[in-house]
Order: sequence, then structure tokens, then C-alpha cells
Amino acid sequence: MLTETGFGGFSIDAVARRSGVAKMTIYRHWPSRAALLLDACTRMAPARAEAPDTGSFRGDLATVAKSLAQRMQASRWASLLPSIIEAAERDPALAALHARQNVAVTATFRAIIDRAKERRQLPPATDASKVIALVMGPLVYRRWFSREKIDDPFIAAVIENALNAAAEPRKKGRR
Amino acid sequence: MLTETGFGGFSIDAVARRSGVAKMTIYRHWPSRAALLLDACTRMAPARAEAPDTGSFRGDLATVAKSLAQRMQASRWASLLPSIIEAAERDPALAALHARQNVAVTATFRAIIDRAKERRQLPPATDASKVIALVMGPLVYRRWFSREKIDDPFIAAVIENALNAAAEPRKKGRR
Repeated sequence: MLTETGFGGFSIDAVARRSGVAKMTIYRHWPSRAALLLDACTRMAPARAEAPDTGSFRGDLATVAKSLAQRMQASRWASLLPSIIEAAERDPALAALHARQNVAVTATFRAIIDRAKERRQLPPATDASKVIALVMGPLVYRRWFSREKIDDPFIAAVIENALNAAAEPRKKGRR
Repeated sequence: MLTETGFGGFSIDAVARRSGVAKMTIYRHWPSRAALLLDACTRMAPARAEAPDTGSFRGDLATVAKSLAQRMQASRWASLLPSIIEAAERDPALAALHARQNVAVTATFRAIIDRAKERRQLPPATDASKVIALVMGPLVYRRWFSREKIDDPFIAAVIENALNAAAEPRKKGRR
């Protein structure tokens, strides 16, 4: 129901109608619309993806970015994310949920960046948050802001770019 | 009212209460909540910014990016944007509005990229959409997804990165 209507069409009444469960019974489990909504969103969170191990940071980053780009364009989570972000602007509980989900979504990036540092594939001073923003940013921008296609050449350009920044300050040689 | 409550708290009833204008009168000008909402959002669109002319593409890009980062963090438009994006997922009229606003927001980028091509500061084949995504992306990601700080060093890193990509395929020399 949430993916069809967003938060706007979500009410205990509508859930009761759709599920055939009495409102009283729903209220026994969730004291309010907000509580049920929060719980539903929590369960729709994306599963934490395994960190790939291709042997190179470039390969790992490409794998993670492609899988995320796919989930952004196809998953129920992705169609609900704008509602969560909208609510997070004003509702502290949803803001906390949104923050937790963003940590989960980016955890795989952190894992491959940390490992690349251990393996000396990246300088120890690499700023993981910056690299994540450089990869996630252009993807979320095309998906939710410009609504342009996220195709393989674009993903490749984004990765190339982030690799370049990750290898800063003065190690361009790996390109 | 929209910036306070988002789309969720927006109704003809609430507008009538707040404005002291009779509902009948409001309905005479806007036939539905949707029509009034669309009109209000249209009027809150960010003004088209003048393209700066600092003499270099790097300087122009920095000026545009900084001004946009500031508007993202302070303007009424920015606090409403998640509602528009949320509605755009399901409502064609809001999707069209969102598309028009995004064209307006990115027009300044296009203007400075086009001029830099004319002045041979950028290769003629530079992909404007890609450069815009590389600049806008990390900014919108930090503002609405990770909610991290958008400080000057971050903006500088984003610009450096996009300049690098704009000068592709093989013109790293300008760094």
C-alpha cells in the first residue's frame, strides 16, 4: 500500500480495509498511525549487502555501485524513500529511521573502503564519507532529481571520478 | 504553511483558516487542493540565477556550486523539495513541475559550461549532464540523504572532481 500511495494514502482505516483486520485489533498492536508507519518502513529497509571481494578496490566499488543503482531503480524501498525523506524533514522519529537506513545502505561502501586501506590499495587518509558522497550523489541525483537514465557508461564515469578522488592528494598514477 | 507542514498538512480548509478567506472564494480561483498546491509550489520555485563570469570555468563553477549549496541549506524551496519529489513519484502534474524546476536550477550550470566550451576552456565534447550530476549529486546527497555538513572543503573537493571529469578524456594537465 505504501509503495502505491506513499505516506499520503496511509491510514489505519485504509490498512483495516485492505487487510480485513479490525481497526481495534490493529490498534492493539500499534497505538497510532505513526507507529504502524514507522514499523512498516523499518521492515522495508534494504537488506545489508555482502561486501564483494574482487581483488581490487576499483572492482569492488563498481560491484557495489552497480548493485545499488539497480536497487534504486527497482526496489520497493526506492519508491518509498522520497516519502521517508519528506517526513524526515519534520518528524524526528522518521529522521532517525532515515539516518539508520542510510548507514545500512552505505555500510558496504565503508567495508570495501576500510579493506582497501588495510590492503594499501587506498591511502590511509582516504575520507570514506567523501568517497561515498561522490558515488552515491550522482546516482541519487539522476534517480530522484533529474530523472535521467543511470546507464553503465554513467556509472563507470562516476566510479572513475570517485577513484580519482580517493587516490588524492597526489597518486594519479593508478589511472 | 507548506514549509511548516509539507504537503501532508496542506488542505483548502487549512488555507481558509490561516488566510481568513472563505473556502468558496478560494475554490473560485483554484478548483481543487491539487491546483492550489501546484500553483503555490510553482511560485516558490528558485529564481533563475545569473551566470557568473569570473574568467575561468573553475571560478564560475565554484561560484554556482557555492550559491546552490547555500540555497539548499536555507531556502523555503529546499525545505519543500522533498515533498515535491515524493509527489512526483506518483503524480504526473507534480512530476512535470519538478522537471521544470530542475531545469531552472541547473540552467546556470549549463550556461557556464556552454560558455566555457565557446572559450575553449572545456573540450567541445564535454557532457554537460554528466558534469552537472557530478556537482549536484554530492550536494543533494549530503543535504537530503546523509544529512552531513556541506562545508567549503567538501564543495572544493566536489568541484575539483567535476573539473577533472569535464576535462576528460586526457587533459589532466590543468590540475
